[in-house]
Amino acid sequence: MIVEMKTGASQGEIDGVVAKARSQGLDVQLNKGTDKTVVALLGSNTGQLSPDIFAVLPGVESVTRIMKPYKLASREVKPRDTLVSCSGVEVGGERVVIMAGPCAVESKEQLMEVGGAVKRAGASVLRGGAFKPRTSPFSFQGLQKAGLELLAQAREQIGIPVVTEVVDPHDVALVSGYADVLQVGSRNMQNFALLTNIGKSRCPVVLKRGFACTITEWLTAADYLLAEGNDQVILCERGIRTFEDSVRFSLDISAIPVLKKSSHLPVIVDPSHAAGHYSLVPAIAKAAVAAGADGLLIEVHPNPKEALVDGLQSLTPSDFTRLMEELRTIAKSVGRYI
Amino acid sequence: MIVEMKTGASQGEIDGVVAKARSQGLDVQLNKGTDKTVVALLGSNTGQLSPDIFAVLPGVESVTRIMKPYKLASREVKPRDTLVSCSGVEVGGERVVIMAGPCAVESKEQLMEVGGAVKRAGASVLRGGAFKPRTSPFSFQGLQKAGLELLAQAREQIGIPVVTEVVDPHDVALVSGYADVLQVGSRNMQNFALLTNIGKSRCPVVLKRGFACTITEWLTAADYLLAEGNDQVILCERGIRTFEDSVRFSLDISAIPVLKKSSHLPVIVDPSHAAGHYSLVPAIAKAAVAAGADGLLIEVHPNPKEALVDGLQSLTPSDFTRLMEELRTIAKSVGRYI
Amino acid sequence: MIVEMKTGASQGEIDGVVAKARSQGLDVQLNKGTDKTVVALLGSNTGQLSPDIFAVLPGVESVTRIMKPYKLASREVKPRDTLVSCSGVEVGGERVVIMAGPCAVESKEQLMEVGGAVKRAGASVLRGGAFKPRTSPFSFQGLQKAGLELLAQAREQIGIPVVTEVVDPHDVALVSGYADVLQVGSRNMQNFALLTNIGKSRCPVVLKRGFACTITEWLTAADYLLAEGNDQVILCERGIRTFEDSVRFSLDISAIPVLKKSSHLPVIVDPSHAAGHYSLVPAIAKAAVAAGADGLLIEVHPNPKEALVDGLQSLTPSDFTRLMEELRTIAKSVGRYI
Amino acid sequence: MIVEMKTGASQGEIDGVVAKARSQGLDVQLNKGTDKTVVALLGSNTGQLSPDIFAVLPGVESVTRIMKPYKLASREVKPRDTLVSCSGVEVGGERVVIMAGPCAVESKEQLMEVGGAVKRAGASVLRGGAFKPRTSPFSFQGLQKAGLELLAQAREQIGIPVVTEVVDPHDVALVSGYADVLQVGSRNMQNFALLTNIGKSRCPVVLKRGFACTITEWLTAADYLLAEGNDQVILCERGIRTFEDSVRFSLDISAIPVLKKSSHLPVIVDPSHAAGHYSLVPAIAKAAVAAGADGLLIEVHPNPKEALVDGLQSLTPSDFTRLMEELRTIAKSVGRYI
Repeated sequence: MIVEMKTGASQGEIDGVVAKARSQGLDVQLNKGTDKTVVALLGSNTGQLSPDIFAVLPGVESVTRIMKPYKLASREVKPRDTLVSCSGVEVGGERVVIMAGPCAVESKEQLMEVGGAVKRAGASVLRGGAFKPRTSPFSFQGLQKAGLELLAQAREQIGIPVVTEVVDPHDVALVSGYADVLQVGSRNMQNFALLTNIGKSRCPVVLKRGFACTITEWLTAADYLLAEGNDQVILCERGIRTFEDSVRFSLDISAIPVLKKSSHLPVIVDPSHAAGHYSLVPAIAKAAVAAGADGLLIEVHPNPKEALVDGLQSLTPSDFTRLMEELRTIAKSVGRYI
Repeated sequence: MIVEMKTGASQGEIDGVVAKARSQGLDVQLNKGTDKTVVALLGSNTGQLSPDIFAVLPGVESVTRIMKPYKLASREVKPRDTLVSCSGVEVGGERVVIMAGPCAVESKEQLMEVGGAVKRAGASVLRGGAFKPRTSPFSFQGLQKAGLELLAQAREQIGIPVVTEVVDPHDVALVSGYADVLQVGSRNMQNFALLTNIGKSRCPVVLKRGFACTITEWLTAADYLLAEGNDQVILCERGIRTFEDSVRFSLDISAIPVLKKSSHLPVIVDPSHAAGHYSLVPAIAKAAVAAGADGLLIEVHPNPKEALVDGLQSLTPSDFTRLMEELRTIAKSVGRYI
Repeated sequence: MIVEMKTGASQGEIDGVVAKARSQGLDVQLNKGTDKTVVALLGSNTGQLSPDIFAVLPGVESVTRIMKPYKLASREVKPRDTLVSCSGVEVGGERVVIMAGPCAVESKEQLMEVGGAVKRAGASVLRGGAFKPRTSPFSFQGLQKAGLELLAQAREQIGIPVVTEVVDPHDVALVSGYADVLQVGSRNMQNFALLTNIGKSRCPVVLKRGFACTITEWLTAADYLLAEGNDQVILCERGIRTFEDSVRFSLDISAIPVLKKSSHLPVIVDPSHAAGHYSLVPAIAKAAVAAGADGLLIEVHPNPKEALVDGLQSLTPSDFTRLMEELRTIAKSVGRYI
Repeated sequence: MIVEMKTGASQGEIDGVVAKARSQGLDVQLNKGTDKTVVALLGSNTGQLSPDIFAVLPGVESVTRIMKPYKLASREVKPRDTLVSCSGVEVGGERVVIMAGPCAVESKEQLMEVGGAVKRAGASVLRGGAFKPRTSPFSFQGLQKAGLELLAQAREQIGIPVVTEVVDPHDVALVSGYADVLQVGSRNMQNFALLTNIGKSRCPVVLKRGFACTITEWLTAADYLLAEGNDQVILCERGIRTFEDSVRFSLDISAIPVLKKSSHLPVIVDPSHAAGHYSLVPAIAKAAVAAGADGLLIEVHPNPKEALVDGLQSLTPSDFTRLMEELRTIAKSVGRYI
């Protein structure tokens, strides 16, 4: 932590900063420049301290945090890649793991049809929403518990692990009773009650990025899961909110190499929610694999025209099958396989 | 809803759009331009329909929603201003209502001292956080139930209604047992389980804007509360995320006149969380009142240097008292009072 | 400048940073923490050095610039407020200066009518565009030289200084031959050839903020003008690009107090271009004056329905006159006058 | 263009809209819904009309433009892909064209060394800046005319076309006398005087995206070039400004498929300016090729540690050579070659 004093700050003000730092167990080094004094605060947990406790002191111009606020998710703390096991499907290794399925579970027929199709095309995990957080109270809210039961049936019959979203902190036990992998949606990335409960459950979890959260905030949210002892965390980039209006969200492709440098956790990409339109999904999916993503989360619906939720961004099974062919070639060209 | 067909769309494709619209109970009017056909879909609930169910049809270029997705929060549905009563303090009328207090309840002494001070300076509601959603799991998380009890004591002894945040859907009954007004934080604006429960409670509520949510999304979230029968909803602008890095969040001052046109709900402003620095709070607070805000939510701490949370953005009681003087003059100059 | 070394950086790598710093004439202080070494670089011009020259060295994790990259525009260099004289109208003093007029000069009749009206209502400077940068090549591009001549006539007959935009670096002499104040538009804030020529001209200038530029970048652009010897610079906040779509641009109200802290230059606000709709202009204008703006730049058109450019954001003369009444009261309530 | 009237708009107000539309040569179709009237305006040039001329009329609630404001750059006007010839190197065909070289031309030695190296590694065009727009007036501004002469020498000796930036509208003839391809920088995307002059020159041009401009605005800027008769336009995505602070700009990967749908112009990507750090360049470059980019613009410097400009984002020749190997494999996997 670097504290820049105001030009002309008094010795008493400098002493105040030093005393505050020592009270927090920090070492202090003074840098007296020609115009102003800069105080370096040294210690192993300066990332977890709020810069504000120094910024509020008299004579302080600004405070800059050098250490990151996240800790357990950082590669400095754990240099080797974390592998997450989704009931036998390993995420973060050489294989690029494809999770695919409908946005919402609508019926047994729909789920079985699309589940079989995506498995045949090479997907390793089936996705499907039972609890649907919807921006309008007048929209379809998901089949809820009945949807979970259908997912469990699909897993049995098709032989594929399933991932589904949990939205209420009190539903973690319920949902993890049916699903192999939990999903935290973008709007819940900073729902700390939810994160804490999932952390305690030890169930593998896909943590989607808040659509207006920085990578630093995202890894700090992951720390909530890791701090409770759950290290089975997969990060999922799904687009951020920008001024560009030709897509629903702008996929942040550079998040992939940034995360690979900063964190040991595997990273997957959801091109469907980012693009908001099926015609844009293949290009973004291919880009993600080329950039080093460990997996993809893709929406597939047997009949997008009749989908209850997000049909516009869903691929048909035949489009998905064609895309999988292309993805296999890209994966191979970066030394991986699907 | 306006459906623009692709140049050269076939008659069959146009018929498909018409059939889909009729199946939703909509009237249809075809506009055949020189280059392309535009289909207007008419009906009273087109704002609540997803444009995607048409965009996904063959031959469709784009779909534009004319009606807003929110309904109950709109001024079209209810032209007259809503007044919200916070245990006798009316928000949305001629008076500009000031809610002030510490970010977090820390102790009985702290709360009583600041509560007395803000009341003497003219604040009508005492704010204070008991449940604190924190971006890092290593930060102070609030006094929780003990904090609620202190708030109830402060209300008794000081004689001022209290507002406090609720973060877990299952805590709505607990928190509304102690507080006069509930607060939904920015990160929970789209926590629909929480909104639904607060809607059922009928307790007055301050709905903070999600820091990356549009005004349309915000009013649609308010619909969740209103749809459950709770019309005691106060909107609170608290800054949005932009590229500008000299403030924590950029206060969206134009949200005030936009909301006054679009909605009947009262609007207050939180200058403290937006600015992130006490020195910027007075200018933003004055601007908000001049622009027509119905109230302010301001952080005040007896000793910001020792605050456990957000000291940097807190005013001291004496700074707050001085600001209140200035705000009274501004309020008068726009035909209101404090 | 603070250079954070990687964990485990070698002594040779640290020495490399020190050597580079010394070669730039900087003093160096080493801070050896428990985990990593932090090198503080001290000197009077570290704000003007690129952090990249250190970031690129082996063993470096990150580089943080403590000093601002701008210099001449900063309040540290010149603590007292700069006053800009627009042919006798002083900007930056006790008076809040209102500049008003049509977006584009369209005809002698239009300009004389609106010029007379805004002067009668209390405006001190007449605005009007002769060179119009338009986003589409198929739009009206302004009257150009004929427009400048009309502005000069209006100044004579009405007795009011005029401000107009210059877009081409080679037109600075031409435009300043007719106008009292030059205007640099938002899209030209970083047109450095233009800035350099205006800097040389010594003509008073309104420097509009680039709609996606930070305050730091804005003040650094002002340095281009000041470095050439032109200290007659007025900053104009006109809205920034955000995700919010109910307005054309989001007016950054906190820019006013931030600039007042960081810079000695006067600050005015253009509510018309920010809002994009006449109905939002009064609230934003009042907010700006309450927040401490030194002036306003407002579009007024005798007949907005027939305006060739931006009619939707223009006030009528009678709306403007009414707004001026309200602004006078607000100005008085913050200790100023119009 | 769709004009939504206010609820309860009078017949006279509807007639006013109809009359205005007819005066612009548009056809009109009225859609009377249950709550409100919607007026569809039909004609072949509605994209070039400002919606504001209708929005300003009494009784109008909102106006929605269906047609895009750009015309000549759109795929509707010209369905087949445009090929741009850079002195024999074709951009927009099957080959993925790599343009590489230093950010700024610094000396003959530097340019020859890096020019030879990138050609050997497979680049087809040499980039290098002679005129450098810099955010600070105290930074290196480029070798200017001497830099152009060095570029011409490099072209001769190495046998490779060169691309370089032009920043002043009056320098177009000068720069196109030396360079094979002109470049318009991000900050000049809406410098319409510059675009018009380049349009007249007919010289091939790389039009970089304004870092805060939408794709629609970008294609409208391209129309400035095309309207003057210059169809040799290459679009270059180089990152947009977002809230994310781990990169300099967020590369908008979805711009590639969006442009391929909307426009016939070739699209290249500049991963160097987006990332701002050499370590992120390879992942973004590979993603761009996988997503369908027609080329890349990459910064390479023989000794990044000594670069006068942007060394941090420059690859060394050996890193570039290694990246080219990987890019060849990716290109092949999407049916192209380098």
